[in-house]
Amino acid sequence: MANKPSIPKGMRDFPQQETAERNYIFDTIKSVFRTFGYAQIETPSMENLSTLLGKYGDEGDKLLFRVLNSGDPFTGVDFESFRGEDGVFNAPLLSKQLCDKGLRYDLTVPFARFVVQHQNEISFPFKRFQIQPVWRADRPQKGRYREFYQCDVDVIGSRSQLNELELVQIVEKVFSLLGVRVALKINNRKVLTGLAEICGAPDKVVDITVAIDKLDKIGLDAVKEEMLSKGLSAGAVEVVEQILGLVGTVSEKLAAMRSLMDRGSVSGVVSAAGLAGLDELEELFGLISAAGVGLPVDLDLSLARGLNYYTGAIFEVKALDWEIGSICGGGRYDNLTGIFGLPDMSGVGISFGADRIYDVLKGLDRFPSGLRSTTTLLFANMGTAEVRYLLPIASALRSAGVAVEIYPEAGKLKKQFEFADRKAIPFLSINGSTEMAANTVNIKNLQTGDQKSFASSDLDGILAFLG
Amino acid sequence: MANKPSIPKGMRDFPQQETAERNYIFDTIKSVFRTFGYAQIETPSMENLSTLLGKYGDEGDKLLFRVLNSGDPFTGVDFESFRGEDGVFNAPLLSKQLCDKGLRYDLTVPFARFVVQHQNEISFPFKRFQIQPVWRADRPQKGRYREFYQCDVDVIGSRSQLNELELVQIVEKVFSLLGVRVALKINNRKVLTGLAEICGAPDKVVDITVAIDKLDKIGLDAVKEEMLSKGLSAGAVEVVEQILGLVGTVSEKLAAMRSLMDRGSVSGVVSAAGLAGLDELEELFGLISAAGVGLPVDLDLSLARGLNYYTGAIFEVKALDWEIGSICGGGRYDNLTGIFGLPDMSGVGISFGADRIYDVLKGLDRFPSGLRSTTTLLFANMGTAEVRYLLPIASALRSAGVAVEIYPEAGKLKKQFEFADRKAIPFLSINGSTEMAANTVNIKNLQTGDQKSFASSDLDGILAFLG
Repeated sequence: MANKPSIPKGMRDFPQQETAERNYIFDTIKSVFRTFGYAQIETPSMENLSTLLGKYGDEGDKLLFRVLNSGDPFTGVDFESFRGEDGVFNAPLLSKQLCDKGLRYDLTVPFARFVVQHQNEISFPFKRFQIQPVWRADRPQKGRYREFYQCDVDVIGSRSQLNELELVQIVEKVFSLLGVRVALKINNRKVLTGLAEICGAPDKVVDITVAIDKLDKIGLDAVKEEMLSKGLSAGAVEVVEQILGLVGTVSEKLAAMRSLMDRGSVSGVVSAAGLAGLDELEELFGLISAAGVGLPVDLDLSLARGLNYYTGAIFEVKALDWEIGSICGGGRYDNLTGIFGLPDMSGVGISFGADRIYDVLKGLDRFPSGLRSTTTLLFANMGTAEVRYLLPIASALRSAGVAVEIYPEAGKLKKQFEFADRKAIPFLSINGSTEMAANTVNIKNLQTGDQKSFASSDLDGILAFLG
Repeated sequence: MANKPSIPKGMRDFPQQETAERNYIFDTIKSVFRTFGYAQIETPSMENLSTLLGKYGDEGDKLLFRVLNSGDPFTGVDFESFRGEDGVFNAPLLSKQLCDKGLRYDLTVPFARFVVQHQNEISFPFKRFQIQPVWRADRPQKGRYREFYQCDVDVIGSRSQLNELELVQIVEKVFSLLGVRVALKINNRKVLTGLAEICGAPDKVVDITVAIDKLDKIGLDAVKEEMLSKGLSAGAVEVVEQILGLVGTVSEKLAAMRSLMDRGSVSGVVSAAGLAGLDELEELFGLISAAGVGLPVDLDLSLARGLNYYTGAIFEVKALDWEIGSICGGGRYDNLTGIFGLPDMSGVGISFGADRIYDVLKGLDRFPSGLRSTTTLLFANMGTAEVRYLLPIASALRSAGVAVEIYPEAGKLKKQFEFADRKAIPFLSINGSTEMAANTVNIKNLQTGDQKSFASSDLDGILAFLG
């Protein structure tokens, strides 16, 4: 094979530095999940297509990667019968004929499937996290890949808003550990329902929320225009505008909303859903305050996100010092497992966007410098006798947890120096017949130039020098 | 959807306990790889089929999972042209037409592809490890899955046998940390070549090694029969038998082999390859001894393993106290990247079989008991005021690294007790108005029954009690 090999478009190799940096993000997130008692699970990369199809809308169905049935999937297939009158194959139907399985598209549907399938073994409330790749046959572009990791944390089987609070605390802790300043916005789907109700347009909740969700991007005038074009009355649009214009503290906004929702003051309609949503928000903000959350948390009445399944709280996190869109988000869903036959299982969860968080840390230069190097100490290779002298010393250091390499080839020192330099190895140890005779080890800190000699048995001294 | 959902055959969900146990294995292995200066990389799940096809033999090609091209892969395909004279479709060809990508079948070929593709960014010798799932459309059976993890560690770009030694030390350390007694067998491909040469059948090296590789399973008589059936002479079979019958220490076996290889004493042929292999083995066993490796390491002249690409040392590890076959193995390959156009890049590596190691640890009951529980302390939920009192205490404990849950619903204590029990949470804290008034926290060790009260600010005292 003469051509230089390549990988499929939208896919990525992660060389050692990128892997170390990504592991730093995953390990930080996991360590926080763990202190809140969330347990990790994993689901298979492939799911039955019957599990995946119809869960992500028509567009999502098209973006599923399908896995060809193994063996001979073709014999017995009447291909012509899949051709439409226009002569074109019905690709979805023919794909379904040839493929029973597809690659995971997100972690939410597999989680719902998992909960239903294992419901008798699970102790509810079930707090799980899951960090695995997902695949989407999207058109690749900058920052959008066909294989990427999701980090989801959910609790299912409890309606208590203590769960929402925990997610807020998790967000606070994760980004504090990562050294990234973020702001958290919260809304509640029931308040959005209430908004539509007091506008006199309860059937237009999706249109209203889709429109106001764009407020940041397209501005108020365009949002109003979109609502009018969807058949909302001028009066209704005025109500929405009034609400979007609310300013003040969270308490003030909640109070203003409450007076709009509970006196029928706008359209004569009192919204029970809206009031319930405001009660939930009030309770949640109370808990956030009681827990001493230091993160900036604000109520954003225009926040909607994946409306399809959220039924209560809605969350979105943005970095304050780096422009990139949402880096974490989620909400409460009351019906997630209903699609697999298990109703009344309320849950709430958030998902951390590992790729965007990576870009933020890279952009702000917040990765710890130690990630560059995988090795702390390199023993130069001066020959067979010297290596044999060093082997037990290297073993002792490794047992103490130090990452140690012995350069495998006895060769020019220049080459060995360059190797240490390219790998950013901070300590180099060169030992020849003098050190062997004296039973010592000579170690140099390549950053400071400090150099010191130790008795080869002085493990503590060496460890202290290596820091 | 009324049917209980399921997953594709040969695939597995990993609930929390299994995930914790598997992470324990992966983390142990990784920690050892790291102390030897190996860096983790990741490659994409999908590779171009052109990268994968032809690398695993005809059988391997059949076992590749192929991913249907996205969009419409069908329009323009003349399906009838893929039908043979017997009316049956040519499945491999038609699959190739519809699928450009396949799922990773092992970590070795993607590693070779990675090294060639990134050769200008890599510092050689390149020490990498990789822990990722692979997929094979094998018939599922007990212990054989269609998705499973491989843990590969390789160094490429160095012919020094210090690398072989490091792999031996890694094997020793990993299984010592996992608490599993193992034995390591070593052979050398060049000695197998030499064996064929001194038998006077240099072209039959594959037949000979395939046969003797089965010695453990089928016994000497069947091995001899197989060699005869492959056209080896009775004299040649006698030489092989003589070598397989060698007993004694490694030095004695090496000396006996050397006298067979270098005097032309058997067939009149002196095998230069065989002598080179013996030199390598002698050097490697010398290094193993110099490094003070405590693991039982033996020379096994019948060990062959995936002959296709090994060119030097061959390794195999078996558990001593659990019958399961090889749990780790590998060897040196001089030509791995040659298939992608980069010749003369010698490497050596081993692969840890995570699923089999899991079975051994499970069978020998060697998993640490702490893996069962994800939470150290559960605060019972006695109502809103109590929870608000506990929130800052829980936060402080979490910041100290303790996994803490507050039961999310204020409900019957019995239910909360059961929850702690089912999740094997070792400490329970129940605090009501008395504790709030006294500003204390009451914690009970559910295993010993010990109970103690702490000032809520006495973090050190609480941490000491939790162990």
